[in-house]
Amino acid sequence: MATSISPLAPASFPKMPPVDGVRLSTAAAGIRYAGRTDVLLVLLDPGTSVAGVFTRSKCSSAPVDWCRARIKSGTASALVVNSGNANAFTGRTGRAATALTAKIAGKAAGCKPEAIFLASTGVIGEPLDATKFEGVIERLVADAAPGGWEKAASAIMTTDTFPKGAAAIVRMGAGTVSICGFAKGAGMIAPDMGTMLSFVFTDAPIAPAVLRKLLRESVEDTFNAVTIDGDTSTSDTLLAFATGAAAARGVAKISSATDSRLAAFRKGFHAVLANLAEQVARDGEGARKLVEILVEGATSKSSARRIALSIANSPLVKTAIAGEDANWGRVVMAVGKAGEPADRDRLSIWFNGIRVAHKGERDPAYDEAAVSAAMKKPEITLKVALGLGKGRDRVLTCDLTKEYIAINGDYRS
Amino acid sequence: MATSISPLAPASFPKMPPVDGVRLSTAAAGIRYAGRTDVLLVLLDPGTSVAGVFTRSKCSSAPVDWCRARIKSGTASALVVNSGNANAFTGRTGRAATALTAKIAGKAAGCKPEAIFLASTGVIGEPLDATKFEGVIERLVADAAPGGWEKAASAIMTTDTFPKGAAAIVRMGAGTVSICGFAKGAGMIAPDMGTMLSFVFTDAPIAPAVLRKLLRESVEDTFNAVTIDGDTSTSDTLLAFATGAAAARGVAKISSATDSRLAAFRKGFHAVLANLAEQVARDGEGARKLVEILVEGATSKSSARRIALSIANSPLVKTAIAGEDANWGRVVMAVGKAGEPADRDRLSIWFNGIRVAHKGERDPAYDEAAVSAAMKKPEITLKVALGLGKGRDRVLTCDLTKEYIAINGDYRS
Repeated sequence: MATSISPLAPASFPKMPPVDGVRLSTAAAGIRYAGRTDVLLVLLDPGTSVAGVFTRSKCSSAPVDWCRARIKSGTASALVVNSGNANAFTGRTGRAATALTAKIAGKAAGCKPEAIFLASTGVIGEPLDATKFEGVIERLVADAAPGGWEKAASAIMTTDTFPKGAAAIVRMGAGTVSICGFAKGAGMIAPDMGTMLSFVFTDAPIAPAVLRKLLRESVEDTFNAVTIDGDTSTSDTLLAFATGAAAARGVAKISSATDSRLAAFRKGFHAVLANLAEQVARDGEGARKLVEILVEGATSKSSARRIALSIANSPLVKTAIAGEDANWGRVVMAVGKAGEPADRDRLSIWFNGIRVAHKGERDPAYDEAAVSAAMKKPEITLKVALGLGKGRDRVLTCDLTKEYIAINGDYRS
Repeated sequence: MATSISPLAPASFPKMPPVDGVRLSTAAAGIRYAGRTDVLLVLLDPGTSVAGVFTRSKCSSAPVDWCRARIKSGTASALVVNSGNANAFTGRTGRAATALTAKIAGKAAGCKPEAIFLASTGVIGEPLDATKFEGVIERLVADAAPGGWEKAASAIMTTDTFPKGAAAIVRMGAGTVSICGFAKGAGMIAPDMGTMLSFVFTDAPIAPAVLRKLLRESVEDTFNAVTIDGDTSTSDTLLAFATGAAAARGVAKISSATDSRLAAFRKGFHAVLANLAEQVARDGEGARKLVEILVEGATSKSSARRIALSIANSPLVKTAIAGEDANWGRVVMAVGKAGEPADRDRLSIWFNGIRVAHKGERDPAYDEAAVSAAMKKPEITLKVALGLGKGRDRVLTCDLTKEYIAINGDYRS
């Protein structure tokens, strides 16, 4: 397990306001880890809207299957998340564990099991003993209180080296609403989805269909634009909850995605997701550099995305960046293997604003010393201009270091 | 650069017979490395057939472009290969360097520049100074002699830790013919192609169209079924040359791919390619384990191939194997992300013959100690049964170690 905090971590966990209608509590259920919290309960006021995006893995985990089956209802009463065990590839045992968890939580919270949303993260393929929740969930319900975001974000960590939170307060019609979210990531991170678990809460009164639309809009350029190692988790879950509690303060209910009162909310919601997704990249396993890949001049946005992901997932590009080497030859290689339209003789490449290659050749003005200095920075922007069209896109990733190998070569033992 | 020989290397370079009509020589032209050979010249008797397969990169190197333009002629007089500089992403300078190299070699060998085939491997994006060949190629022509395969294989190495050769002697009609090949690989290895450079020579009298067909048949399950890091080189080149010199010993010319006299040759040719491709995996950068991925029960062979490549290219699977951890949960993850038909509840997984997962759950008979012992072996076979159809395939790869990061984090400096 990781021991030291990523050098790319924010200075501190952000100040985050409580969200009306949301109460949280955490506990140590001893799922796998000793001496730390590993269960999170979130209670949601009646009438809370929910929307979700899940992994596209064909082998999704039992909690993902559970949520998928229940997300269509559009409403949620509570969320239970555990770390230490992903309850993935656990067959019938896994399905029974989700049903039992929801039953225990529903009983304690006074709602139907079907209104409980679930997420699990940790080891794959080992049975999750849901009876461990029996002892703690009643107390979690009793203890649940507004705020406490950092504790919540900490309870769901696995190889993460810091808790990840982000918040926004935005105007909505006559009043203001809060948007608070947290996430865990670290490894096995690739679209689609781009994180393992993330939860976002707001007191805005927003109909489920509208929340769903906002979520899909925002996920494409945030969580789906982050990759750590090109591996996609079986458990990726992003849930958004809107309690509607702000209605009591005179904020009108939004039931159409084209409602002009959504303008500030849409922006704030996107910013919270983007912030969380960036923190996931900042905590990539073994990461020492945050790497932003900008591709422009592609034949389309989706072509730019595929080229950006090809660069972001290339072990040779990632190890070169770890070695502080502006090895643009490997960038050319990654552009070439993407299978997208590209003309070698029109290609230009920049590292942190310094053009190193231009129109198919090494830039004659290339100053090795300046580039070397730029590569020592903790944040690297790698820009590729294809010179073919107007398609552009952006993907975040991190470098590939020996520490990644150390973390992942000995995870289970 | 790598310093110690891969623990997966064969005990020694194989004994390889000369091939009639093929003469080789090597020299140190000082392209990049000091104190080692870095240029190879191969002279081919008049009337030699040639066929080739090249990288699918959209940013192929200048020598690849040169060969592609000339391969249609079907005949070759000589081959010049250098290590140290790939002459890739070098624009007009690169094209001029290939033209100059061919001109120098054609003059020395007494043939048209168009009959010279070229390959380069090494750093990408730096100009190749072809005038360096001027001083050495005349001497190479004078020195060229039959055999000397190990020296040839050594001259084209970059981060390879051992020279790679393979040979077969097979019956063809009334006589026998030889097939000798060598390759270099090590990193930036992924289909298609599955190696950077490989050259195979035979004295069999085979028409270019037949040679082309044999090459395409064999490459699919040999070089195209090897992946080291999922990165595809701009320089991948596999050329096969048939001098036809065996005709002087009474071997009849083969001008149809369905000729029954091809049976043994086809087998021998495939075996040489398979052997070279496996050696490339055995010399994967930083490799400590040779990993064979077998996928069966898929809906088709191509579906099995995609699933096998998804597993073979997963950093999490590769680091787990480096850590001698039978982490089949990560195998499930890699199956799930392949995007191919898969049913979690029918999946079974074996490591070196021990079934660790069965029908969507951990195998109840799973013996951790036996699996741990199996994982310590230098060769790991990972079998996945999908239980859906009859599609099966096989891919070779290696583990992902800290040594890979060390080799690739500081290649240019």
